[in-house]
Amino acid sequence: MPHITLGSDAPGIRGLFEFRPETARPLNALVETLLRGDNTLSRGERELIAAYVSALNECRFCYSSHAAFAAAQLPQGMTLVEQVRRDPATAPIPAKLRALLDIAAAVQRGGREVGEQEVAAALAEGATDLEIHDTVLIAAAFCMFNRYVDGLATVAPDDPDGYAAVAQWILSEGYVAEPPKVEAAARP
Amino acid sequence: MPHITLGSDAPGIRGLFEFRPETARPLNALVETLLRGDNTLSRGERELIAAYVSALNECRFCYSSHAAFAAAQLPQGMTLVEQVRRDPATAPIPAKLRALLDIAAAVQRGGREVGEQEVAAALAEGATDLEIHDTVLIAAAFCMFNRYVDGLATVAPDDPDGYAAVAQWILSEGYVAEPPKVEAAARP
Repeated sequence: MPHITLGSDAPGIRGLFEFRPETARPLNALVETLLRGDNTLSRGERELIAAYVSALNECRFCYSSHAAFAAAQLPQGMTLVEQVRRDPATAPIPAKLRALLDIAAAVQRGGREVGEQEVAAALAEGATDLEIHDTVLIAAAFCMFNRYVDGLATVAPDDPDGYAAVAQWILSEGYVAEPPKVEAAARP
Repeated sequence: MPHITLGSDAPGIRGLFEFRPETARPLNALVETLLRGDNTLSRGERELIAAYVSALNECRFCYSSHAAFAAAQLPQGMTLVEQVRRDPATAPIPAKLRALLDIAAAVQRGGREVGEQEVAAALAEGATDLEIHDTVLIAAAFCMFNRYVDGLATVAPDDPDGYAAVAQWILSEGYVAEPPKVEAAARP
């Protein structure tokens, strides 16, 4: 049960967005830019970074959500997402993405944990400055989202089908659009 | 020296904002709402929470900045900010703010660290659901900002006068307005 009265049955961050739309708007705009905006990293790769950091923070709602969103946008689907969660070092991913996941893991531990060595390794695998920037900010942003969702003790559903259904919504509409609501006046 | 080439000499997060204006916009909109929007917590109290979390994350640029912004908006100034940084339990602050700082410290450790006990203590001191929500989100957001600023190894100036000058700008213009720039055409 959430720590505060949200006035919404929506799970995870969605109940928080309904409780506080003023902060929901910039949070959704941030994640839309980071995870879906024009980028040399694919949307699937960026969702994978978000899912991986959420797993490191043991945030069940965010991991389940972004694992589903990554799986829906990567040819290897949930199998690869789970391999990365278990160990990026042995997962069948490109060396550049592995180096970026190393940076993301360092960010999760703390900002001062990112050393010249991790950055040099990513650059050596062909990562651009912008890709490194966005990896750091995605990882940092999920250290926020994970704490927001769990810090208020929101509910995380068990059923994987629910997360897969939301994934289809995100793929077609993105993070900024609000789900369609039936107008009160139009109700029977 | 920053880990990536920012093309800007601006210190801390300001150089990152110039490097990536697409993410700067929602980040500034978030912090404007959280730290300056209408709220039953004063602007000084919210900046104090931001400064305290930044100190726990050992982020020198963010602590120096938000300590200066808090000091400029609290009657007791930097003396109180430093007392809170050393130990909120003994700082001369209202019991409600102390309970909210306890929640913020738990969020800094991790989302799952916030227990019913910390929340019950804040409610008992008169904190509202919205104040608890905003405290959790401010603390979570600074776990992001601190990692962003230090994860890319940005530069933190030593001179406290610089932070105090930026504080005056924030007090009058807020986080969303861009600093005035001299138009190229108007230059001699």
